[in-house]
Amino acid sequence: MIVDSHAHLVAPEVFYAYRAQLIGSGGYHKNGHGITDDMLAESAAQNIAIMDGVGTDVQFISPRPFQQMHSFEPQAIVHRWIAANNELIARTVQMHPDRFAGVAGLPLCAGTPVESCLPELNRAVEELGCVGVSVNPDPYEGKGHTPTLGDRFWYPLYERLVELDVPAMIHSAGCYNGREVYSDHFITEASIAVMSLMRSDVFRDFPTLKLMISHGGGSVPYQIGRWQAARLSRGLGDGPDAERFEVSLRRLWFDTVLYNKESLELLFKVVGPDRCLFSTEKPGSGSVVDPATGQWFDDLKPVIESIDTLTDEDRHAIFEGNARAFFPRWKAPTTPAAS
Amino acid sequence: MIVDSHAHLVAPEVFYAYRAQLIGSGGYHKNGHGITDDMLAESAAQNIAIMDGVGTDVQFISPRPFQQMHSFEPQAIVHRWIAANNELIARTVQMHPDRFAGVAGLPLCAGTPVESCLPELNRAVEELGCVGVSVNPDPYEGKGHTPTLGDRFWYPLYERLVELDVPAMIHSAGCYNGREVYSDHFITEASIAVMSLMRSDVFRDFPTLKLMISHGGGSVPYQIGRWQAARLSRGLGDGPDAERFEVSLRRLWFDTVLYNKESLELLFKVVGPDRCLFSTEKPGSGSVVDPATGQWFDDLKPVIESIDTLTDEDRHAIFEGNARAFFPRWKAPTTPAAS
Amino acid sequence: MIVDSHAHLVAPEVFYAYRAQLIGSGGYHKNGHGITDDMLAESAAQNIAIMDGVGTDVQFISPRPFQQMHSFEPQAIVHRWIAANNELIARTVQMHPDRFAGVAGLPLCAGTPVESCLPELNRAVEELGCVGVSVNPDPYEGKGHTPTLGDRFWYPLYERLVELDVPAMIHSAGCYNGREVYSDHFITEASIAVMSLMRSDVFRDFPTLKLMISHGGGSVPYQIGRWQAARLSRGLGDGPDAERFEVSLRRLWFDTVLYNKESLELLFKVVGPDRCLFSTEKPGSGSVVDPATGQWFDDLKPVIESIDTLTDEDRHAIFEGNARAFFPRWKAPTTPAAS
Amino acid sequence: MIVDSHAHLVAPEVFYAYRAQLIGSGGYHKNGHGITDDMLAESAAQNIAIMDGVGTDVQFISPRPFQQMHSFEPQAIVHRWIAANNELIARTVQMHPDRFAGVAGLPLCAGTPVESCLPELNRAVEELGCVGVSVNPDPYEGKGHTPTLGDRFWYPLYERLVELDVPAMIHSAGCYNGREVYSDHFITEASIAVMSLMRSDVFRDFPTLKLMISHGGGSVPYQIGRWQAARLSRGLGDGPDAERFEVSLRRLWFDTVLYNKESLELLFKVVGPDRCLFSTEKPGSGSVVDPATGQWFDDLKPVIESIDTLTDEDRHAIFEGNARAFFPRWKAPTTPAAS
Amino acid sequence: MIVDSHAHLVAPEVFYAYRAQLIGSGGYHKNGHGITDDMLAESAAQNIAIMDGVGTDVQFISPRPFQQMHSFEPQAIVHRWIAANNELIARTVQMHPDRFAGVAGLPLCAGTPVESCLPELNRAVEELGCVGVSVNPDPYEGKGHTPTLGDRFWYPLYERLVELDVPAMIHSAGCYNGREVYSDHFITEASIAVMSLMRSDVFRDFPTLKLMISHGGGSVPYQIGRWQAARLSRGLGDGPDAERFEVSLRRLWFDTVLYNKESLELLFKVVGPDRCLFSTEKPGSGSVVDPATGQWFDDLKPVIESIDTLTDEDRHAIFEGNARAFFPRWKAPTTPAAS
Amino acid sequence: MIVDSHAHLVAPEVFYAYRAQLIGSGGYHKNGHGITDDMLAESAAQNIAIMDGVGTDVQFISPRPFQQMHSFEPQAIVHRWIAANNELIARTVQMHPDRFAGVAGLPLCAGTPVESCLPELNRAVEELGCVGVSVNPDPYEGKGHTPTLGDRFWYPLYERLVELDVPAMIHSAGCYNGREVYSDHFITEASIAVMSLMRSDVFRDFPTLKLMISHGGGSVPYQIGRWQAARLSRGLGDGPDAERFEVSLRRLWFDTVLYNKESLELLFKVVGPDRCLFSTEKPGSGSVVDPATGQWFDDLKPVIESIDTLTDEDRHAIFEGNARAFFPRWKAPTTPAAS
Repeated sequence: MIVDSHAHLVAPEVFYAYRAQLIGSGGYHKNGHGITDDMLAESAAQNIAIMDGVGTDVQFISPRPFQQMHSFEPQAIVHRWIAANNELIARTVQMHPDRFAGVAGLPLCAGTPVESCLPELNRAVEELGCVGVSVNPDPYEGKGHTPTLGDRFWYPLYERLVELDVPAMIHSAGCYNGREVYSDHFITEASIAVMSLMRSDVFRDFPTLKLMISHGGGSVPYQIGRWQAARLSRGLGDGPDAERFEVSLRRLWFDTVLYNKESLELLFKVVGPDRCLFSTEKPGSGSVVDPATGQWFDDLKPVIESIDTLTDEDRHAIFEGNARAFFPRWKAPTTPAAS
Repeated sequence: MIVDSHAHLVAPEVFYAYRAQLIGSGGYHKNGHGITDDMLAESAAQNIAIMDGVGTDVQFISPRPFQQMHSFEPQAIVHRWIAANNELIARTVQMHPDRFAGVAGLPLCAGTPVESCLPELNRAVEELGCVGVSVNPDPYEGKGHTPTLGDRFWYPLYERLVELDVPAMIHSAGCYNGREVYSDHFITEASIAVMSLMRSDVFRDFPTLKLMISHGGGSVPYQIGRWQAARLSRGLGDGPDAERFEVSLRRLWFDTVLYNKESLELLFKVVGPDRCLFSTEKPGSGSVVDPATGQWFDDLKPVIESIDTLTDEDRHAIFEGNARAFFPRWKAPTTPAAS
Repeated sequence: MIVDSHAHLVAPEVFYAYRAQLIGSGGYHKNGHGITDDMLAESAAQNIAIMDGVGTDVQFISPRPFQQMHSFEPQAIVHRWIAANNELIARTVQMHPDRFAGVAGLPLCAGTPVESCLPELNRAVEELGCVGVSVNPDPYEGKGHTPTLGDRFWYPLYERLVELDVPAMIHSAGCYNGREVYSDHFITEASIAVMSLMRSDVFRDFPTLKLMISHGGGSVPYQIGRWQAARLSRGLGDGPDAERFEVSLRRLWFDTVLYNKESLELLFKVVGPDRCLFSTEKPGSGSVVDPATGQWFDDLKPVIESIDTLTDEDRHAIFEGNARAFFPRWKAPTTPAAS
Repeated sequence: MIVDSHAHLVAPEVFYAYRAQLIGSGGYHKNGHGITDDMLAESAAQNIAIMDGVGTDVQFISPRPFQQMHSFEPQAIVHRWIAANNELIARTVQMHPDRFAGVAGLPLCAGTPVESCLPELNRAVEELGCVGVSVNPDPYEGKGHTPTLGDRFWYPLYERLVELDVPAMIHSAGCYNGREVYSDHFITEASIAVMSLMRSDVFRDFPTLKLMISHGGGSVPYQIGRWQAARLSRGLGDGPDAERFEVSLRRLWFDTVLYNKESLELLFKVVGPDRCLFSTEKPGSGSVVDPATGQWFDDLKPVIESIDTLTDEDRHAIFEGNARAFFPRWKAPTTPAAS
Repeated sequence: MIVDSHAHLVAPEVFYAYRAQLIGSGGYHKNGHGITDDMLAESAAQNIAIMDGVGTDVQFISPRPFQQMHSFEPQAIVHRWIAANNELIARTVQMHPDRFAGVAGLPLCAGTPVESCLPELNRAVEELGCVGVSVNPDPYEGKGHTPTLGDRFWYPLYERLVELDVPAMIHSAGCYNGREVYSDHFITEASIAVMSLMRSDVFRDFPTLKLMISHGGGSVPYQIGRWQAARLSRGLGDGPDAERFEVSLRRLWFDTVLYNKESLELLFKVVGPDRCLFSTEKPGSGSVVDPATGQWFDDLKPVIESIDTLTDEDRHAIFEGNARAFFPRWKAPTTPAAS
Repeated sequence: MIVDSHAHLVAPEVFYAYRAQLIGSGGYHKNGHGITDDMLAESAAQNIAIMDGVGTDVQFISPRPFQQMHSFEPQAIVHRWIAANNELIARTVQMHPDRFAGVAGLPLCAGTPVESCLPELNRAVEELGCVGVSVNPDPYEGKGHTPTLGDRFWYPLYERLVELDVPAMIHSAGCYNGREVYSDHFITEASIAVMSLMRSDVFRDFPTLKLMISHGGGSVPYQIGRWQAARLSRGLGDGPDAERFEVSLRRLWFDTVLYNKESLELLFKVVGPDRCLFSTEKPGSGSVVDPATGQWFDDLKPVIESIDTLTDEDRHAIFEGNARAFFPRWKAPTTPAAS
């Protein structure tokens, strides 16, 4: 079974017209988006066709990241928007429980304590049936400074995630700092997330917490030597007897949203295939055909299958097994579904 | 002929999904909105049906105000959004030149000099055929302070408007100050616009400048006594020999977007029927049926027809004649079109 | 009996010299204003002469609004200034209990919780004998954002007002945003106050709270159709079964500080004569003789008497009865006093 | 002849009521202060009586410093206020040319280039007949940072002063930083002024510029050893061959507003009697009788006369001669006037 | 015995290289400074040679003020830096208990409550053996506004100082406001400290609190007449029956870091020799030889010895006795040590 | 010959004590650092010993990045510090012209136009003999937003670099945003630099400009697939006919400061060995012995020699040839020097 752990809600365009209205009216407009089951079914069918085209059986879908608007004001519109996303995700999963599982967004607004998003977390998991959450480590979207994931600021969320046995995908949202587009910022924030966690006590304090870093860990696997050295340094780290950086790193999980073979090889080598979840974010920014090969950049199944340093067991873990371990609340279908 | 001088582009919802994408991606996404002529024709037809329903022959259409986002960043997305609005307006007018005329939006961003919107003004008038512009006197959308319309800040725009013989509708956009919703802010900014202009030298310096204040002049006609007194005061105004406030006020034009008869009567009495342009902003926030009467709040033609202090000449001026005078570039259709 | 519910303390000029010293010295100067009873008696006599000239028997006097300086720092000078105003008001009332009643100012400073002004509220009512208070809904005076009157921010004040059975006049103070002079801002803030209250639960939570909106409700009676439509809309309001806006509006009281007949007619029609309190703010910014008529703009008694749609009962309510209802702590004189 | 070089306009209290109105109304009120010649004559007579009481023949009067409000907004009210001060000063001088000479205020507002006050400088000197100006080195009044007097920011002013042959008294105005009252700030700013000038090229670039530091030079004469050492240090100054600090210091002039004998002795010793101008700022904050002595703190004539290290020539210079040198445009009366 | 109460740690230069690294790395570098006992012994020996050269037996040493960096971020580097200073001070004292006593720095960072520095206070006194502390009244170092020493903000510190029987030297640190160099700011802050304390209830609430103002009290002794008058004024102070300013002033202690004889005379006269502690801050900014005299500016022993208004008892108090009283925890050596 | 293109000045510790003094005194202290030739010779000898230990013949040395303090104020201290660095670099090169070449720092301060650093660029190249410069693309050091390298903001620098035929190493400095330590920020800024340049016209406008991205290009080679796809997308890039991303990428040069073999392999594969300059930043944060291997992390020569996909020609290019091409002003020694 091929399970794609990093995918996003495919919604009718009117859903984004609704978002534009929320923003423009500052929440004054009370209308909902009015998306009917028929409209949603049509979008879901399009997505399933894409999945079938590349042999994906199941997708874990979360809100489209760059549209999350965690830094927008008034905060009420963020809450309404994220709730609407989670509801559409739940409705989509309900329509196709064998093809989708829900990963909820959280309305953690810039400048607010993390407790403010716990009611929606509870609702998404307990009422809407979501099995994971997407956590934006930068609610300011490039315009301010929220403490990084290693900070105690985040502990109330970690505590609740552990209680619910719900894992989190770490993924930033928009970026408005004028120096990076959101897509660059995804990589920056993934890197900051890893480095902050590696220097923290989070996994000592929450040994069962499950966090998946998106986009293959940002820059960290590539820069691994730098951080190995620092960890073993007396001035920058804990000296030669410290736990090695790459050992610590394996407390995290990683997606495989890297659209070339060499980088995937590096990722598997550095963090191990047992910590990687097959993920393509398809359809997404990699949904482009490479004219040189005729292949979609985000069609990663054949790429991973072609990596000969992986064993069959490795591949099974990557394609399915790790997702089962990472998402304990997920009721996996009994038979593969991709046509 | 019934000419409605304050109406807005009716666009397919996907147009607002495009807006959401512009905002969310900070302009990184380069895709256009992809609105085809068929899609636009469908929207236009819906609008024409509404016009026919109330007997409106022609609408002057401008961008939907609260969606203009003049305060958003990066400024490039404002420019793209306003340009796209103006293009859709032009395409709509081209489809139905007897039913619509174009009033362009201007990409005047918060914190930028007014010269920055002149290229789009020129393009909208000279290439797209717009016959008026919509000017937002508060590009900060409630979050900062642009000089008011009486300030020399605005002179480069006035100069160009006069050269082009193009009139301006004064209408604010969104509001994000947390104290007013955009709809409240429309009234506040209309009032501020009038008061600022009344205390300025603008019409001495630009005697042929044409400005229409929306929403019946905000609060000013209702508060007229207050300003008459101040004008004739020695401490607050120019003393008893000053030009009376109501005389100065008649240098401006006013729309009739007031959804009750008594207020329209007050407006006509205070500024005179020869300075008022029939306007309903339909479809818009007044498109609600009053359960008490069964009438649409924004169906103002019968309301104005029922005001018995108006002469036939007055009504003709309000319904058609004043618009002809205000929009000199407008090629009015030779015969009424409403079915 | 003619009762004017919106008037301000007439103080010797030296009182404002004291204010200048407070501001200039940042409160370092500890001297008081040194106003003797003789000085105050002279000012009061001037005011009584003005009242007699237009037939006003009683005035409710509060601090001169634009001089209140709620946004000034250090906050200690605001407390001293407001206290001094309230004391002069009380001394004036004590001199002429048949001609004046006291409406206290509140030292609610920008950026402070509303509880900070309750001690002065208590003192003004319980010790100084004031029967109403003047509430500035914008302590930032145009330079910042205090929650609007519908917000729970204000509940501690409302609670205490209800306990004391003291009504509040809603009236802003100075304005330093660079876009409005204070006189414009009075109208803006009156409008914002109404709209915020109309969208709130304040009167559900405090059914006996009494608030009078100054300057005839700002723009709201004139824009009434707009808000009626929005209230009955499903997107902006509560749909067709909602309580109509004009019904809700009658939970408020309004002054009549509108210096022309037509606007007064509109006000009475929209909110009803039973919710309007005769008020002229005389002497004030309307104390100007209209060269066209020879009448003072703020001599509103004959204007209201000339409105033939009002019944005698209406006029009695406006001139006296509503004030008795609104100010329950007021001990009205037994016989009219104006000479 | 006894000439007091540091005194301020004694104005009727209504002048400060006017100031309060300017501030409160943000300049909306256009009324003047309405001070008649009779009113002014009364104030001047009071002041002359005070002068006579202590034997002062002539006072150089400037605007009351802490009331100058250079940091207030809108800046137009600062310009109006300073102009009004200068006019009252000129009118007072004209009434008593043998008893007063005019030192004008400058409307240098916080955050504006120094050129903005040159028109008023020209008017005050050329039209109003002022013979000196009062320069506030801290237009932000403790809330921001204007370059200090040694900076080229001030050169346009210095250039014009030299052209006009007009000297400047350096004296700060209000202080709103929450850490000092204005009276503390006078001393701080006098000290900063001296230190900045001592480290600058100002007197190399404007050898004929005349600046008088108020309040006896702030802290500098008392801390003289500290600055002598620094000047001769290689790390902090220019090394052992540098011009000694106390030599440089004598390029400045100093007033004698120090209300005790020992400090005056220190001042004369450090800077020399030939650089000090008799000054008492009377009436002012020193106009208090010391219960221990029965003397006014600001009655400095007998104090200086009692310093036996001064020669007669020194005393003549202090009491009269230095003022003649410092204010070359001053037409000194031919005979002493104090009764 | 000659005791110098105002001196600073003389540390090897590598200590400041460590500081540069802390700042540059934002605390990322965990290395210590690595100063060995040999290195420290060498520095201490240099300092002792200087002391011997001028006959100083004992120095009270605190961290070099301008290097304290209380306004730097992240605050963790301030804590590390101050702790390292205190440890070096303790090690130095331990090496030469007869020549040095420790005055600890406090890591009171800009914008934090004063409680945040109490743990280091406790450690410095109870574990490191310091007998005094150095308090920076301006942790923002010129860039923000901490309440002045008279404010209740500081009470938790005062309370703990009194409990520990530890006195405080008041001394500011760096200055980055662009208008003063740190050396100017020392004087300004000493003056502000005095004035704030004089207007406060601090000594009523903490009668046994001991505070020494550095640099001879800033400007206050020189400006004494000004403050005497204000204290006895009804408008600025408490009227003629108030405790006289110079009496209140004697609740404070003062150092003698004034590098000229006349100013020292003024200080002794104004506050009394029984409130002054001999201090030279040597080596420091006064360690310059005056080419005119061949003497070090900061060699104050002969200067004080030459003041003939002092009695032998006065001199003993200044040189030794007052220090014994001020620092009760200090174990004075039994015999003088200067060679 | 082994040429290490990324190394930093090894300076005596007193140099950083000088830096601490500059910062602490805000530039008030005028002393230099006082580093003698002997002191410098000792540091250089230490560095040469390190080079000899790993077989490096020549190092290109620039200022230690995290100590550059481009965001510090006053800006004068940045200019002094960078100038001092460049001078020490020049002196070091002069001592050992066969072992070192100079890469100058630039005093580009936060918030200033790039022209402000051109005088030091000219001096460093023309007078001091530097053959390259180090450019910090984030002068705000994480606290503000300077336009990225693709922006025309930087064109005056590019223009001058091209004129001088001087290449630039792109390397950030400190980081004070609270979310990254400087070492994380190096990677973030290298990535932002690449992405900004790839989306710009810089190489069209300056075809001969030479830029080396440090730390192996940050995250970009690892994330290559992501950017290849975006480039060929119609929405995010220029569509399928666009120049491929990896082709554009080869307009840049890259250092090899990646402390593990797999990442080096990925770098060589993605950008080609002909664009990579051997670099180890030794001594630096990689100067740690890996306990698992006994090797220094930053001893990269044997690592690169062990990569069997490289040809001898590739290795020669990496170790020497590319440096010759990149630094045209460098006079390479005729014979290798490492002992």
